[in-house]
Amino acid sequence: MNRITPRTLKGFRDFLPAQALRRARMLARIRTVFEQAGFTPFETPALEYADVLTGKYGDEGEKLLYRFRDQGGRDVALRYDLTVPLARVVAQYGELPLPCKRYQMAQVWRAENTQKGRFREFTQCDVDIVGSADVLADAEVILCLERALRALGLTNLVVKINSRKLLDGLLEAAGAPADERVQLLRALDKIEKVGAADVQAALQSAKLTTDVGRLFALLGEGEADWEQWAAQTTPVVRKTERGAAGLAELSALAALLDARATGTTVFMVDRLLARGLDYYTGTLFEITLGDQSSFGSVAGGGRYDTLIGRFTGKDLPAVGGSLGIDRTLAAMEDAGNGGERASAAQLLLTMLLDDRAELLALADEMRDAGISVDLYPEPAKLDKQLKYADKLGIPAAAILGPQEQQAGMVTLKDLRTRKQQTVPRAAFIPAVQRLLQG
Amino acid sequence: MNRITPRTLKGFRDFLPAQALRRARMLARIRTVFEQAGFTPFETPALEYADVLTGKYGDEGEKLLYRFRDQGGRDVALRYDLTVPLARVVAQYGELPLPCKRYQMAQVWRAENTQKGRFREFTQCDVDIVGSADVLADAEVILCLERALRALGLTNLVVKINSRKLLDGLLEAAGAPADERVQLLRALDKIEKVGAADVQAALQSAKLTTDVGRLFALLGEGEADWEQWAAQTTPVVRKTERGAAGLAELSALAALLDARATGTTVFMVDRLLARGLDYYTGTLFEITLGDQSSFGSVAGGGRYDTLIGRFTGKDLPAVGGSLGIDRTLAAMEDAGNGGERASAAQLLLTMLLDDRAELLALADEMRDAGISVDLYPEPAKLDKQLKYADKLGIPAAAILGPQEQQAGMVTLKDLRTRKQQTVPRAAFIPAVQRLLQG
Repeated sequence: MNRITPRTLKGFRDFLPAQALRRARMLARIRTVFEQAGFTPFETPALEYADVLTGKYGDEGEKLLYRFRDQGGRDVALRYDLTVPLARVVAQYGELPLPCKRYQMAQVWRAENTQKGRFREFTQCDVDIVGSADVLADAEVILCLERALRALGLTNLVVKINSRKLLDGLLEAAGAPADERVQLLRALDKIEKVGAADVQAALQSAKLTTDVGRLFALLGEGEADWEQWAAQTTPVVRKTERGAAGLAELSALAALLDARATGTTVFMVDRLLARGLDYYTGTLFEITLGDQSSFGSVAGGGRYDTLIGRFTGKDLPAVGGSLGIDRTLAAMEDAGNGGERASAAQLLLTMLLDDRAELLALADEMRDAGISVDLYPEPAKLDKQLKYADKLGIPAAAILGPQEQQAGMVTLKDLRTRKQQTVPRAAFIPAVQRLLQG
Repeated sequence: MNRITPRTLKGFRDFLPAQALRRARMLARIRTVFEQAGFTPFETPALEYADVLTGKYGDEGEKLLYRFRDQGGRDVALRYDLTVPLARVVAQYGELPLPCKRYQMAQVWRAENTQKGRFREFTQCDVDIVGSADVLADAEVILCLERALRALGLTNLVVKINSRKLLDGLLEAAGAPADERVQLLRALDKIEKVGAADVQAALQSAKLTTDVGRLFALLGEGEADWEQWAAQTTPVVRKTERGAAGLAELSALAALLDARATGTTVFMVDRLLARGLDYYTGTLFEITLGDQSSFGSVAGGGRYDTLIGRFTGKDLPAVGGSLGIDRTLAAMEDAGNGGERASAAQLLLTMLLDDRAELLALADEMRDAGISVDLYPEPAKLDKQLKYADKLGIPAAAILGPQEQQAGMVTLKDLRTRKQQTVPRAAFIPAVQRLLQG
């Protein structure tokens, strides 16, 4: 039989215990925050009919789809995000009560260029509110993700907001046709990668009217005050319904978030924020780490009022956002918030007794009492078993050898202090609980 | 723009809030049991190089792989189970501390014939112990899954065990070549589907020696006592090392499980249990529901001491098992353990105030106090908002309209009793907590 080389696909990752445990803890904390904010879970399949996903992410996004023919000859693709499947679900099940507040925490797949340090499989945690056009819905989504990041222990968050509608309205006011507008917004989205000069060039070649050109030129100067910029922009955006609505929505959202600005989070309008995906229609937002901005955004999203209509023919307002746990975790580890143990066990029950039934009985008693117990699964020298516990960071060990069994006692060893005590079997569980609390 | 019909692929499922919430709760409970038993999480990618997966599940299993060429021309496949990826990981990362006790809860994909009521995407919850050949490891895996099922509220569990080694030893004693043995075991695995006659025919056509034929004939008579059968079998199985070892291991495991038999779980040797996958080498087990046996097995697994060696060239003992939440959930719902609410929210904060900042502030205060709060995201008539809460099963509502705001009060309505009280803003959170506890 040929030996097969064990290997992982490029851009895909295995998570071994310490990291997987940390990820599981993160997801549990995020889930709690999402549910406390009134969002309920939805689950959708990993695989979708390809036409459900195509035409929604832009040309560049669509190239990244894992798309293939299944055994039945169906054109299928792995999900690229959690938003389009949600839109599909809302369209498919007409009886869903609206407004609908959902969360989903699941993996998505994109055949990214891994040289950029991007992954081809990653986990997204999404919250969405479907069926409301109110700015309160935008605020709830943004604040829920901000709260989730804080619950993970992250501070100095920077929440940047903008409006696709406002940007689009400015371009419309300049007479740029819709197709060209999408291209310009994509150029704007890449400003941090390609530099302001390229974006300026794109704007110039699009022959915008002078005053709009001046306003967009101001975009590159991040220092300029939002309210001042809004005042300068107003006469132009008022020329289009779209622009005026975008400005009003963005102002209302900014005011609402400002009122919630407590702690270390900074809320700001970022006039450069455009986001790449095609389906956004209004509010845009991203959350970055103020002191670790090199990690890029750890959360982002926006309003997509026309996406569901792509399935039903009738638009339904919706806003949502996504928290990426991979970058968040990388940032947390970089900040020294690492060092999770490689085991969830609180105690190792060593195996020094042939009477396996007795060991199983003691382990189960402790587990019934809520103590996480790893039972060493085969006979070995005590030293070897304790080294195993140390390696996994298990803080305590129980020793039940033939001598202890005969005397009706169990030895409890604190692996942090190396102190040990021998206690009667009947008093053992309380002794473990005291040790773990102490 | 063309409208796209929203639809789900055959064999794939969407889980809407009530069901998704129930699944999330189940997974959380299972995770707790797994961790209390000293298992730690591993995560592996959904996608693997195809050759990592092929040649391990048998011909019939292999046909069900979702296999395709990715953008880079790689021959890849979606994972079929969680066991082979674990074996790959153990082989790939030489530095893993052994013994290694891991759990994984993740989706797997199989292009099953959906007419049998099987799904093409389903969730498995696996525990495995790698690096120990001790029967204690087998018992820990089986008992951990049994405990997890009990933690979900299931009773009357039937745990059936058998030994692939014993079955194989019997066939070896009869002089059946290894290739033929695999076929016969597969025939045996299907005995419930195809009937005993077909299996008998297969055994007869394999020209087994008379005494082994008689022993296998006894397999079909489930009533026969295990110890009696073991005694009858002993002279034959002793002819082969494999058979003798299998009998000894199975006897030791049966004794260990018998000692743990408490409550309503029945442990038994099932001489018909063969299991279909190629990679099993020793202990086999399945857990069924005694009073709902039509749901088939809800958990199963076994020992696979040679699977890791397929990657490393050196065998490493390992045993594991899998709990399938889909059948388990179906059985629970069938038994009337359904009716989870469609929202995790404990209170709906209605929107009757233009001052959205004030509503957000009150919602966040409650969330900080650990109360799950759904904030209605847009203005609507109170009746409509309360109907929304009723539909989702949210038990309480808070009413903060202009009148209440002016008076510094909030009205709290118990949606189960329809009673309401108006309390000062400062005393509101304790009032909600009392209502939810009451």
